[in-house]
Amino acid sequence: MNIEIEKLRKQLPEWVKSSVPHSSAGKVASYIPELAKASHDALGITLLNTKGEFASAGNFEMCFTMQSISKVYTLILALMDNGEDKVFSKVGMEPTGDNFNSMLKLELVRPGIPFNPFINAGAIMVSSLIHGSSQQEKSERILQFFKELANNNNLKHDEDVFHSELESGHLNRSIAYFLKGNGVLDGDVEEVLQIYFCHCSILVNCADLARMALVLACDGTDPLTGKELIPHRVVQIAKTFMTTCGMYNASGEFAIQVGLPAKSGVSGGILALVPGRYGIGVIGPSLNDKGNSQAGIELLEKISQEMKWSIF
Amino acid sequence: MNIEIEKLRKQLPEWVKSSVPHSSAGKVASYIPELAKASHDALGITLLNTKGEFASAGNFEMCFTMQSISKVYTLILALMDNGEDKVFSKVGMEPTGDNFNSMLKLELVRPGIPFNPFINAGAIMVSSLIHGSSQQEKSERILQFFKELANNNNLKHDEDVFHSELESGHLNRSIAYFLKGNGVLDGDVEEVLQIYFCHCSILVNCADLARMALVLACDGTDPLTGKELIPHRVVQIAKTFMTTCGMYNASGEFAIQVGLPAKSGVSGGILALVPGRYGIGVIGPSLNDKGNSQAGIELLEKISQEMKWSIF
Amino acid sequence: MNIEIEKLRKQLPEWVKSSVPHSSAGKVASYIPELAKASHDALGITLLNTKGEFASAGNFEMCFTMQSISKVYTLILALMDNGEDKVFSKVGMEPTGDNFNSMLKLELVRPGIPFNPFINAGAIMVSSLIHGSSQQEKSERILQFFKELANNNNLKHDEDVFHSELESGHLNRSIAYFLKGNGVLDGDVEEVLQIYFCHCSILVNCADLARMALVLACDGTDPLTGKELIPHRVVQIAKTFMTTCGMYNASGEFAIQVGLPAKSGVSGGILALVPGRYGIGVIGPSLNDKGNSQAGIELLEKISQEMKWSIF
Amino acid sequence: MNIEIEKLRKQLPEWVKSSVPHSSAGKVASYIPELAKASHDALGITLLNTKGEFASAGNFEMCFTMQSISKVYTLILALMDNGEDKVFSKVGMEPTGDNFNSMLKLELVRPGIPFNPFINAGAIMVSSLIHGSSQQEKSERILQFFKELANNNNLKHDEDVFHSELESGHLNRSIAYFLKGNGVLDGDVEEVLQIYFCHCSILVNCADLARMALVLACDGTDPLTGKELIPHRVVQIAKTFMTTCGMYNASGEFAIQVGLPAKSGVSGGILALVPGRYGIGVIGPSLNDKGNSQAGIELLEKISQEMKWSIF
Repeated sequence: MNIEIEKLRKQLPEWVKSSVPHSSAGKVASYIPELAKASHDALGITLLNTKGEFASAGNFEMCFTMQSISKVYTLILALMDNGEDKVFSKVGMEPTGDNFNSMLKLELVRPGIPFNPFINAGAIMVSSLIHGSSQQEKSERILQFFKELANNNNLKHDEDVFHSELESGHLNRSIAYFLKGNGVLDGDVEEVLQIYFCHCSILVNCADLARMALVLACDGTDPLTGKELIPHRVVQIAKTFMTTCGMYNASGEFAIQVGLPAKSGVSGGILALVPGRYGIGVIGPSLNDKGNSQAGIELLEKISQEMKWSIF
Repeated sequence: MNIEIEKLRKQLPEWVKSSVPHSSAGKVASYIPELAKASHDALGITLLNTKGEFASAGNFEMCFTMQSISKVYTLILALMDNGEDKVFSKVGMEPTGDNFNSMLKLELVRPGIPFNPFINAGAIMVSSLIHGSSQQEKSERILQFFKELANNNNLKHDEDVFHSELESGHLNRSIAYFLKGNGVLDGDVEEVLQIYFCHCSILVNCADLARMALVLACDGTDPLTGKELIPHRVVQIAKTFMTTCGMYNASGEFAIQVGLPAKSGVSGGILALVPGRYGIGVIGPSLNDKGNSQAGIELLEKISQEMKWSIF
Repeated sequence: MNIEIEKLRKQLPEWVKSSVPHSSAGKVASYIPELAKASHDALGITLLNTKGEFASAGNFEMCFTMQSISKVYTLILALMDNGEDKVFSKVGMEPTGDNFNSMLKLELVRPGIPFNPFINAGAIMVSSLIHGSSQQEKSERILQFFKELANNNNLKHDEDVFHSELESGHLNRSIAYFLKGNGVLDGDVEEVLQIYFCHCSILVNCADLARMALVLACDGTDPLTGKELIPHRVVQIAKTFMTTCGMYNASGEFAIQVGLPAKSGVSGGILALVPGRYGIGVIGPSLNDKGNSQAGIELLEKISQEMKWSIF
Repeated sequence: MNIEIEKLRKQLPEWVKSSVPHSSAGKVASYIPELAKASHDALGITLLNTKGEFASAGNFEMCFTMQSISKVYTLILALMDNGEDKVFSKVGMEPTGDNFNSMLKLELVRPGIPFNPFINAGAIMVSSLIHGSSQQEKSERILQFFKELANNNNLKHDEDVFHSELESGHLNRSIAYFLKGNGVLDGDVEEVLQIYFCHCSILVNCADLARMALVLACDGTDPLTGKELIPHRVVQIAKTFMTTCGMYNASGEFAIQVGLPAKSGVSGGILALVPGRYGIGVIGPSLNDKGNSQAGIELLEKISQEMKWSIF
């Protein structure tokens, strides 16, 4: 393992360098001013193995909001809070091939039941299932859970991003009311949206993502503390969704070209893992037309192919 | 004309009687408790000619909320307030073949622009275009306009229906936020929905509808007062939409079988007209699967075929 | 009437001249070489009144294939051969808002039943309902019927167009097999397609279209011969479809802006009528993005508005 | 390994017995008479490890046609014949969430390019890419390849099934002409369909499937002969598609509940594999509403969970 981490440390700078130019084909998200500020050409990565050894390169110290990456862990918390049966009575298990904010399938198939927990409709549904006596408590429980997983007590929300999303998030509001109108979503829509936008706005860097991913790579136990944070079966479910639906409607291509469980976010972050071996955090704000980090995917493809890491 | 109204007065009771049984195949709307109270087998009709002569039969004195029928006249008011160009930059002119609350076409074609002003998405858009300095003033202008058209100063909102719709109207809320999220709808969504639900909740009876329809039958001038209430071109636009999109996704069939400009509502009301000759109001709360009055359509089909009134 | 035809004869050249430039925004159909040959800037029109008086202007003597315009008369023949009930068990009555060759609704709603007889799926279905003991006899019956309607014994097929369409018409073939696979279309697909492409390839000029339209304008009787060629009810059905679905997914806009029953074809032809008064034939090969003659629509809009001919 | 195969041999009969009753909830395919003959309650399985040791139970000796299972290996052959770039210019990599014979996405997204090689549209496209100078030679090459993979020189087509499919396969014919009409499919449609229906009609039993699967489990090399039959990268692509799209629009659920690369067919067969360890063949003709073997999936779920075989 030592040898592998050394190889990674040596090669990473070059791989990052050759991936950066791919950023130029993409665009930084600009639907809220906070995201638009991110550097177009930034690219950073951190890999963390089960002994706690790091390999990092590029702008790996950059901070960014988790956005859709948080959906992996709210799904996990919802499964721990409610059990599989309850969760899957409210959200499906299938990839869709549609855009992340598409409502097409909601209307056409089994009306109102989101196809999977990683499209926006599904993630909003999942947010509504988190236990807690108030919106504040639910959001606090999520943040606390993320702190444990990242082993970082300093995680916090980006209040500006949160408020901007809340104000401008009309398409997500539309989705939530559609779910409400079809009797799938219980509770107050605005409260659910606050929970949703709240966990999307949690600030992390590549090391945080790598640590959070490492817990999944080790089936729920943090290998560096020995603590079991997530039941094995729940991790299995999460990793399966990351493989089939983790990269929006480019998940199939990512599975073919990279072959690692992963989840991307609109801030340009990607969380990925090599089962039993590595947690990985990537940031590259320039997005391709499917909403994934253009340079980040390029970088992961290079690493996975060089290291022969595809799970397939 | 005298002869025709006499024939109608004589035949109507029998035609109503033979149409009532068709109610049994339908269902009274029940998404809010106020609508659910309506009598399943009620059926009433009033026809009014240009001399002010009435022919009525059945439960024609029953009161009911206008619901989607109001969309004809808010479209007219929006056209009078804004002109054709402005209105048709925000809403299309095409029938859809989809359900009245479908969002399918919103997503697939020219995103966010409702296909026509009579589907819910289009009517909500139209409500947002009514002039006025506040929601109250806009709603008041609409009511005032309807009073003039019905020549009835006692028209008022059903407050219970209004509040029930406002509370439970999550699918319409979803549509409105979708329009907002796509940059088509300006202004505050809840305010627009209040205007929309407000005009849907205006209480009328068959005579009110017949009088309002008669104004359209006479190209915008009330033949009984001689007042020009609507410009001719605006009436032409309204009658065209009534013909191509007035009966939800059964408009094509209605055009073939009845052949009169008409508009239906979920309370079971139908407003129809015979150009130059009659305004018609119908009420029959039991709805078919497309959302139109089951017995009401049957009755109009019988009358139109017997009287040879199809405009085609 | 004399005065009107004189006014038309006087004004038409100017109206044609001012409409021609609109051709530049469109494109001549080029999916088969025969259509691509048509002159991009050609525009011609013939109007024919019930006394047999003509008004013509521009390239009105040009010959072209009827294409989708023929669908009006094959529907009529199918209704005369089979009755309403049989025909409408195989094809619907609703406008769709989708492209003419879209299969979307076929799959989503009441699978396999085309939404109306003027989209390709519906017209292919209708072609399969024409009576006759063989494909040749069916095609011959159609041609004979068209000859009577146009009062022109010289009507014939354009064999080159027919064979080109047959060879390249894979999307229509796809539609036909879809109908066959869903148990809606009986008989041999290739035979049905031959009938379909055969009537689409009938050659006409503006005068032929005007005469065929005049029969519909006069409720089925040719006013110049006094012969009843089509039952009144069948004409009524045809005129209704022309109004709600005659111009593909721009039918709603055409109804608002022109307000006449009409049917367009991909060769750039338009057949229209003024009830009780005029049959109209137009040719203008440059098509807009909905597949209708760009300059032809412009011209009809001008005439209808100047003459106040909208039926609404 | 010895111990595991012994455990399997001991437990399998009981697992089969407890899975059989699930057949009652499903239906045997009946669109052609040959498939309808299959026994509704049949259920059989064969597992084969890398030492050539078998564990079998139930009706494992039953013969059936491969149907969609063949799509895995024609994709492989097409990739070996043409390379990744060529194949993926004609077919996508994404799961769809739609029915196997849906044309929805073909029309809506990147028209004419099938979403993945396992839906019918994609598999027909792939069939057209197999090299050979004639339809007969292409079909012969496919059969020869399958014989090598199954190590069974007696594999042959079921001529009755082939001819029935060819005669009744109008929806597949519709799909093929749609691809042709959009310029994606080259060559003669009927010839391509013959190749497609031909490989779907290859007769196998559970042992054949297990052997063919074992080659994939061992990254392309038959562990019992030592022959490299498929390049490693091509196997990787095939296994990825099996995981994301192998069970029609229930692939996501299968990944969560079973977690093995697999492919099902309408005859009730399922091919699955445990990477590096087992090839598996299952037959159970009664299908659930997604088109997968009802009892077969139940059985695989039981085995995978008991043996902890999920790859996630």
